[in-house]
Amino acid sequence: MSISKRNLNILITNDDGVKSKGISALIEMMREYGEITVVAPFEAMSGMSAALTIGKPLRLTELKSEEGLKVYACSGTPADCVKMAMNQLFTDKAPDLLVSGINHGSNASIASLYSGTLGAAAEGTVYGIPSIGFSHYSHHRDTDFTAAVHYGKIIIEHYLKNPSRPEVFLNVNFPDTDKDSIKGIKFCHQGKGQWIKEFEERTDPYGFHYYWMTGEFFNLEPENRESDHNLVKEGYISIVPHKIDTTDYGEIERLSGLWSFN
Amino acid sequence: MSISKRNLNILITNDDGVKSKGISALIEMMREYGEITVVAPFEAMSGMSAALTIGKPLRLTELKSEEGLKVYACSGTPADCVKMAMNQLFTDKAPDLLVSGINHGSNASIASLYSGTLGAAAEGTVYGIPSIGFSHYSHHRDTDFTAAVHYGKIIIEHYLKNPSRPEVFLNVNFPDTDKDSIKGIKFCHQGKGQWIKEFEERTDPYGFHYYWMTGEFFNLEPENRESDHNLVKEGYISIVPHKIDTTDYGEIERLSGLWSFN
Repeated sequence: MSISKRNLNILITNDDGVKSKGISALIEMMREYGEITVVAPFEAMSGMSAALTIGKPLRLTELKSEEGLKVYACSGTPADCVKMAMNQLFTDKAPDLLVSGINHGSNASIASLYSGTLGAAAEGTVYGIPSIGFSHYSHHRDTDFTAAVHYGKIIIEHYLKNPSRPEVFLNVNFPDTDKDSIKGIKFCHQGKGQWIKEFEERTDPYGFHYYWMTGEFFNLEPENRESDHNLVKEGYISIVPHKIDTTDYGEIERLSGLWSFN
Repeated sequence: MSISKRNLNILITNDDGVKSKGISALIEMMREYGEITVVAPFEAMSGMSAALTIGKPLRLTELKSEEGLKVYACSGTPADCVKMAMNQLFTDKAPDLLVSGINHGSNASIASLYSGTLGAAAEGTVYGIPSIGFSHYSHHRDTDFTAAVHYGKIIIEHYLKNPSRPEVFLNVNFPDTDKDSIKGIKFCHQGKGQWIKEFEERTDPYGFHYYWMTGEFFNLEPENRESDHNLVKEGYISIVPHKIDTTDYGEIERLSGLWSFN
């Protein structure tokens, strides 16, 4: 099951946009593994989940073409970028690997539901591409990705030897600490959590209300449990394997026994 | 665990927009169960998944207020609508039930990943609200929802007696047939599937390419398996319980054993 060759065709995308520092760090991290094709949003697309652009036309623009690296910008969402890459660029053969990120900000806990970084990884998984999303707990646009790139390569090495099974993508979160302060790497589950105080209300010059989404993350996972968010807060790198099939099989059994349609 | 009282506070949303026929059918279906608050997108928001609007201000406009029914339009996505309802309207007490839809078009199989109807149901579940998404296999804007409303009430009756467990929402899909042709209601799993031939390429008046998302659904589930899509195609109403925690716990075990970080 290992991905043995090192001359990989790698698709890179993200949700912070093609000009973000995080995607540059990811390109740097991945260049030694093969040929890179970047298809990333023109502008920031945070919080886009697995959203697709329906009812509006899309554009795809080549920005750079050099030895081992092609860069395209797409006017759509992260999932659109993956679809565009697959339909327009990888028409003969799918990429060997999709990596998304490195996101500026956490995609642990419930952020995984809203994340465009992970929406792209989910889309890659639907296409049968081994897919990993990388995120960094710092939101700062000038985040230092040195530690993330170092540990990201270790994770890639393991992944190439022992990839996750198809229909699963990995969600990697890096703590906002320097390399020497990172305590280790742990597989774990998606923590429970929720956003609270989500809007800031303002009044426009004409007297009407409008709302900015803001919000605070509220951790609902007991502190002694090794969830992604809890581990990253302690200084670990968390890896959560996420499924595309989100069926609760136990509930099928339980509810089938309780609901009688006869 | 049953939701015993019949004078419920019900939040209704959708992804086809506040003026769609499907949401009118859902309002009609739910009025006998209690007080209804609709917060739905101004315009069509299909394919929005659980996307949130970050970096753009949102508006919330009251459209109607009558006995037992309040209707608001929100400029954001379906998940934004739920967040807006919870932060601005249900500040004292959460709704007893969230119903989303009735969507014009299937949300079975992989459509569940992209669905704004289900993105809203997921958001409701994060808030701890019992949540159900309803979808109809007909995309037609003049779809006849008679059968859906009839069977939808049967499903609501069962749900109120025996709701799904918290952290799970139900995804109900109705076949595009009349009431007498419906073969029954079945709990089942999310079918495997994918969209193919996803873009139509055109050239604008200035000579540049652009792309419309189109696509065909490709069923990857063996025909003899009782997945949602297969059952609906046979004339059944499918109900899939979907989880918010999408961790693959088996993969944590398996990969922890294979990857050694020491």
